[in-house]
Amino acid sequence: MSRELPSAASVWGKLWGVSVGPGDSEWLTLKGLQILQAADVVACPQNRDGEPGMAYGIVKSHLRPEQTILPLDLPFVRDPVQLQQAWTAAGETLVTRLAQGQDVVFITEGDASLYSTFSYVAQTVHHLAPTVDITTVPGVCSPLAAMAALNRPLSLGGEKIAILPALYDVSELTHALEWSEVVVLMKVASVFGQVWQTLHDLELLEQASLVEWVGSSQEKQYPSLVDLADYTPPYFSILIVRRHDYRF
Amino acid sequence: MSRELPSAASVWGKLWGVSVGPGDSEWLTLKGLQILQAADVVACPQNRDGEPGMAYGIVKSHLRPEQTILPLDLPFVRDPVQLQQAWTAAGETLVTRLAQGQDVVFITEGDASLYSTFSYVAQTVHHLAPTVDITTVPGVCSPLAAMAALNRPLSLGGEKIAILPALYDVSELTHALEWSEVVVLMKVASVFGQVWQTLHDLELLEQASLVEWVGSSQEKQYPSLVDLADYTPPYFSILIVRRHDYRF
Repeated sequence: MSRELPSAASVWGKLWGVSVGPGDSEWLTLKGLQILQAADVVACPQNRDGEPGMAYGIVKSHLRPEQTILPLDLPFVRDPVQLQQAWTAAGETLVTRLAQGQDVVFITEGDASLYSTFSYVAQTVHHLAPTVDITTVPGVCSPLAAMAALNRPLSLGGEKIAILPALYDVSELTHALEWSEVVVLMKVASVFGQVWQTLHDLELLEQASLVEWVGSSQEKQYPSLVDLADYTPPYFSILIVRRHDYRF
Repeated sequence: MSRELPSAASVWGKLWGVSVGPGDSEWLTLKGLQILQAADVVACPQNRDGEPGMAYGIVKSHLRPEQTILPLDLPFVRDPVQLQQAWTAAGETLVTRLAQGQDVVFITEGDASLYSTFSYVAQTVHHLAPTVDITTVPGVCSPLAAMAALNRPLSLGGEKIAILPALYDVSELTHALEWSEVVVLMKVASVFGQVWQTLHDLELLEQASLVEWVGSSQEKQYPSLVDLADYTPPYFSILIVRRHDYRF
């Protein structure tokens, strides 16, 4: 990196990855709140307008006015070169703050270990400044939040669970349904039509549920997919199939 | 049930299933804390001595002295008849409180939707008293807490996840490793020797991690299983295999 790093004698700040949950500001943990409120700098992914994005929106009611908000450009793209550049730039920005002795909390929607940009940003920071103390704080993840919203178990007893990150080949779903009793499809919107048809053919529409924007004011729940043949869910949608239904 | 239920005119209490996380009392969510502290009655699984068990131990520092603690006999057995009897008895106990207009929080270690007794108890309550308002509050689950403790991602990008509840046939693990990039084995203790041998044969010991008693004062982390050939982990142990390693 081009910036000059401080000497080893400097006191580095700490980096925290705090999971803020998928939507409800009250799903932050007590530990997450304490760490969030103690930090000098709160870093977060920015939205397309360059403003602090969804994770910031979830926790902003908990922040102190004197905290520095640091939006980072971490675009939702698939190009590996563009992604690597974004992670490197974000890591350099964080290292600059850490090198000044500032503690930085990187907030991440959902859980910081589950398909989270924090993993890449933290690795970049570690490569640039290996002595930086990095701590991950777990939180509420969207599959479990969705099941709580539906008041249904994700899994029981001896059931196996398959989680698919996003579905590009519908044969993955068929395979997962052969192998496991519970299948979770993260961010299912882009393939919803194909998924619906597959579940229809397998006679599993009644055992499949959709939850949109879980925990936010826009939350919607569909406990069955039977009537959703022509539906287009929003980006933040999660789909859960339970081969053996169980409701209360 | 033999007890007389109140008439429909009575005001029933509400039932909450509150996820308290797998060990650290600070992993409770803000929502969980608020609901926990507002309740008249805090129900929890009891230990073998009939005392309030692990979930109670996690949250006891948050409770008010005037709250009623209601330990329930929910034994760790596999006999379906014995389990059904325990769920029914626990549900009847809760319904008696709810029928008196008391709000009851059932606390559950980890998350209430992930292999939790709360699912069975809540269903029993629903069958006995269908008008009771039941709400599930999500929380930190042990797989994500374990990865946070290790400071490693559970999943990244396009990786698929398989979660196995407890492993009785080691061929399940081999199959899961063929199908998914990440495999989580919940409560792995009873089959650890077989699992270790399988991972050894597949040359995956370095990519496998073990976390014991995550979040508690007894927490131990083994980022690799290479040196654990003859090890016997405790009951609360979770094992994670990542086919493609990623550390920082």
